[in-house]
Amino acid sequence: MSQLQHIEVPKDLRRLKLGELPALAQELREFIIDIVSTKEGHLGASLGVVELTIALHYVFDTPNDKLLWDVGHQAYGHKILTGRKSVFETNRQLGGISGFPRRKESEYDAFGTGHSSTSISAALGMALAAQLDGNTQRQHIAVIGDASIASGMAFEGLNHAGVTNANLLIVLNDNAIGIDPSVGALKKYLTNVKKGTAKDENIFECLNFKYSGPVDGHDIKALVEEFERLKTVEGPKLLHVITTKGKGLKKAEEDQVTYHAPGRFDKLTGERHQRTGIDQPAKYQDVFGHTLVELAKDNPKIIGITPAMPTGSSLKYMMEQLPERAFDVGIAEQHAVTLSAGMATEGLVVFCNIYSTFLQRAYDQVIHDVALQNLPIVFCLDRAGLVGEDGATHHGIYDMAYLRCIPNLIIFAPMNETELRNMMYTAQLGLPHPIAIRYPRGRGVQKTWKTPFEKIAIGSSVALKEGTEIAVLSIGHIGNLVSDALDQYGQTSKIGHYNMRFVKPLDKARLGEIFKKYRHILTIEDGCRLGGFGSAILEFANEIESSNKVTVLGIEDRIFEHGSIGELQQQANIDVTAITNQINSLLHVQPPH
Amino acid sequence: MSQLQHIEVPKDLRRLKLGELPALAQELREFIIDIVSTKEGHLGASLGVVELTIALHYVFDTPNDKLLWDVGHQAYGHKILTGRKSVFETNRQLGGISGFPRRKESEYDAFGTGHSSTSISAALGMALAAQLDGNTQRQHIAVIGDASIASGMAFEGLNHAGVTNANLLIVLNDNAIGIDPSVGALKKYLTNVKKGTAKDENIFECLNFKYSGPVDGHDIKALVEEFERLKTVEGPKLLHVITTKGKGLKKAEEDQVTYHAPGRFDKLTGERHQRTGIDQPAKYQDVFGHTLVELAKDNPKIIGITPAMPTGSSLKYMMEQLPERAFDVGIAEQHAVTLSAGMATEGLVVFCNIYSTFLQRAYDQVIHDVALQNLPIVFCLDRAGLVGEDGATHHGIYDMAYLRCIPNLIIFAPMNETELRNMMYTAQLGLPHPIAIRYPRGRGVQKTWKTPFEKIAIGSSVALKEGTEIAVLSIGHIGNLVSDALDQYGQTSKIGHYNMRFVKPLDKARLGEIFKKYRHILTIEDGCRLGGFGSAILEFANEIESSNKVTVLGIEDRIFEHGSIGELQQQANIDVTAITNQINSLLHVQPPH
Repeated sequence: MSQLQHIEVPKDLRRLKLGELPALAQELREFIIDIVSTKEGHLGASLGVVELTIALHYVFDTPNDKLLWDVGHQAYGHKILTGRKSVFETNRQLGGISGFPRRKESEYDAFGTGHSSTSISAALGMALAAQLDGNTQRQHIAVIGDASIASGMAFEGLNHAGVTNANLLIVLNDNAIGIDPSVGALKKYLTNVKKGTAKDENIFECLNFKYSGPVDGHDIKALVEEFERLKTVEGPKLLHVITTKGKGLKKAEEDQVTYHAPGRFDKLTGERHQRTGIDQPAKYQDVFGHTLVELAKDNPKIIGITPAMPTGSSLKYMMEQLPERAFDVGIAEQHAVTLSAGMATEGLVVFCNIYSTFLQRAYDQVIHDVALQNLPIVFCLDRAGLVGEDGATHHGIYDMAYLRCIPNLIIFAPMNETELRNMMYTAQLGLPHPIAIRYPRGRGVQKTWKTPFEKIAIGSSVALKEGTEIAVLSIGHIGNLVSDALDQYGQTSKIGHYNMRFVKPLDKARLGEIFKKYRHILTIEDGCRLGGFGSAILEFANEIESSNKVTVLGIEDRIFEHGSIGELQQQANIDVTAITNQINSLLHVQPPH
Repeated sequence: MSQLQHIEVPKDLRRLKLGELPALAQELREFIIDIVSTKEGHLGASLGVVELTIALHYVFDTPNDKLLWDVGHQAYGHKILTGRKSVFETNRQLGGISGFPRRKESEYDAFGTGHSSTSISAALGMALAAQLDGNTQRQHIAVIGDASIASGMAFEGLNHAGVTNANLLIVLNDNAIGIDPSVGALKKYLTNVKKGTAKDENIFECLNFKYSGPVDGHDIKALVEEFERLKTVEGPKLLHVITTKGKGLKKAEEDQVTYHAPGRFDKLTGERHQRTGIDQPAKYQDVFGHTLVELAKDNPKIIGITPAMPTGSSLKYMMEQLPERAFDVGIAEQHAVTLSAGMATEGLVVFCNIYSTFLQRAYDQVIHDVALQNLPIVFCLDRAGLVGEDGATHHGIYDMAYLRCIPNLIIFAPMNETELRNMMYTAQLGLPHPIAIRYPRGRGVQKTWKTPFEKIAIGSSVALKEGTEIAVLSIGHIGNLVSDALDQYGQTSKIGHYNMRFVKPLDKARLGEIFKKYRHILTIEDGCRLGGFGSAILEFANEIESSNKVTVLGIEDRIFEHGSIGELQQQANIDVTAITNQINSLLHVQPPH
């Protein structure tokens, strides 16, 4: 490597001649491919913005100028050029650098990201701060994709910025794809702009932005020249840049969805090292996706909705097989929920699949449009619990706490694939309330999941093992760790295990019996401890004026970063060891008299 | 009344000749003014759409055709023409009709509203349902104001609708005002459209809508003709209608902000029956508004932000006196929070004032952009607790539960004006974390609130009264009801009272003492019981393995409708009587041995 080895920070980059940058781009691209091919991570987005990244740091005075990467999947090149080249191989690993920009990690990361469409608001806040400070020199740049700019929050930022004269540059990185291909009227419009068939006035000009472009986002020289010009343009401005996701790796360009995060691959051919998955349990998302198709073929009232996650949620199977009834609405969680509500008023049975962490974006809609009207929507919350390498921004650990306070809402967490299937089956038969079904990222625990459907009684729990002294109450998939822990104690142990399944309504009949039979209760959840499932059990215990000892295992009230799910569960004291230790400790405790 | 008395439902209206409608409009307007002038309620919005309301029900086949009123402030005329004329005088009263459309109330209310910008998504859901059902006849109409359509969620709906061929008509009711005047680039653009200075292509056409208008929204004949035409136009379409908020009552047209909800007034002159307020405590919102100005004059780092509530939050005082540092960003709670986060990264001290119920719209931003980055923003949550006549959609009763699970966040609830002021003072001195300060709608309890500032120690509670048997732990303003209740027992009673102030962090030192000293603990909050302040106390009790009896008074897990705050507190068993009854009952309970 001739150039990249001499670049630690952007200052080094700025010593290069403009003509030297394309070669650097090639090196940077290879460096990303090199590492990601073995260490895994998000590939396509960062490959697409290699030239853009170099041009931005070449022209702008980072970190004094503020550079924000919306979502942040595309920031690998940025990280490598801003002091993190030598640690880039620790990307997304426990104790390593984050896969997303993080303020704590580097002064070059002006704003932490992970969820989409925040960059315009945040950059505008910084630009207005500079203005108030009389600083007219500092530049503020938000790099945002065409999928992310179509989200409501981004529009709110544009709408405000357009009536300020803040020094704000939005770089619209238009590659016509988010994780899955972009959708919506704005995307269609941007396509017309690119084709030259849009009319005179630009939609961004309507919002009072100075618009320029489209520019070829792989032409460094053109980018540098345009950025130099834009530095002197006052007020809010938008540069429309056209890029190719996965640029420079043929396979990644050809199959952009797969190569968003391809796992390990051959760095020369791009060929993926397929993990066979033979004899492994299915992913929960696929159980959801295939089961929905199965049910929808029989029940014409069933609708599937995803906000921009057809692949990640596996709704794609329904989109392929029953396209009229499966909708990808783009990065628009708020709209997804209220659209579902509108459909539900007409008697449709809507399965609205949203990652747990992204449902936070539609919290008001769940309360105001769904729960208050008691519309029986079926929310399927994928990626609930600790999600692993995506880290703090993506953990789905608050859902039980923030959903539990909502009237009318049923909250269910399957312990395995069959329970997920059976609850989906039960829900589409018709429920008197909306329901949230939360399940984790990754694989289930069963060899065969495609079992005949059985109805689940709302609010019913399952006794997995009877005991005499300690009752373990688990909610959802993490109950399997309890089963693993209990295997050590044999079948005749003092420890009972109950798969509670419903956070709400609680199985109060069963709980009443449990509180009578056992002296110690141990609850476990892969969610935050404050206000979650354990708190629900404490509320119940208080209601019946129990004096039993209750121990709550759950995620403590601090921020958990990235790492494997297993590592994070260990950190959070909700792994098999923590459960075992807790049980051992309780076995030696005598009850109060 | 010659026409209105014969109209119970829209069918009756449709028997009239087109030429008779303007006279009906006059009657309907007088009917609204008549009732609202004595019974109070939202006036201006409904006066502005009298002609529009009549035209819509005249042309469209409601309730078969689906008519949705965004927000719903403007739906009084709709209610009167759809079976609720005789009960309209019960509007917003306990047991009476709701001030907003509600599905339970009438088949003509196609979708319940209250919060803004939901109508496009919901109507699209209905339109897509009709399409799937092969129903090409049914019409779906969303009436949405120019302030509401500028919110992100509405954009998400437009962006999706534009790539469908759903039979959806959006009526953009452009009166250039929400509750306060509209803001933002879209408003500016719509003004250009009205003036004819906008260029060829329309922003809505960019999003693939068929655009027509602007039409004079007070010209019934023009409206009827245009609606008749639009019935035959396929796909998504938007009609731009220009109206005057408060139309027909001179005072209401002249002072649109005040006459949004003017209280009682003279129905002929419009003159308001001013409640003097002399000798009454100030409103919390005004204590916030004036204190912020006072602090901001001394501290140049202070910024004030409101999403479209300058009057309701009293941020208007800062907007008047320090306009460079006070921002109304429109109905854009998501943007408001992340804009605040952007500013906070630059060292500004942002007071972001959002009604408790509307913070639900920015829940993800509070977690993802503020708490994860630990940016010390000061959220001031007005209208926390039961809000009274605005009803179910507006009660701010979930905040303690949904905020408590967020790491890094401090949650404070002042019991009176001084505590609100002192916490605002403390916060701007610099906190290590973001804070949410929640306070109720309405007036405080002190005659003089403008007292010298004192710093409040984070996590500290106040012992208001020592006792021997029962400790009442209250959070926030509702503590005053506890004081009232305790007055009945005299100073030497067995009952202690602690103003806990912080939901998080809890004053664990004090709580430890309390749990030692008292056998019974009674908690009270004006928030939902599941996961709220009482649950925090239960978690604490469990942590210290206390066997004290804890009784949690809070809002039970069901939906509370509209009525006065006092009536609703009675329903929810958190009024003085409920507190007294609970104490009396506990006084007769013997502790377990």
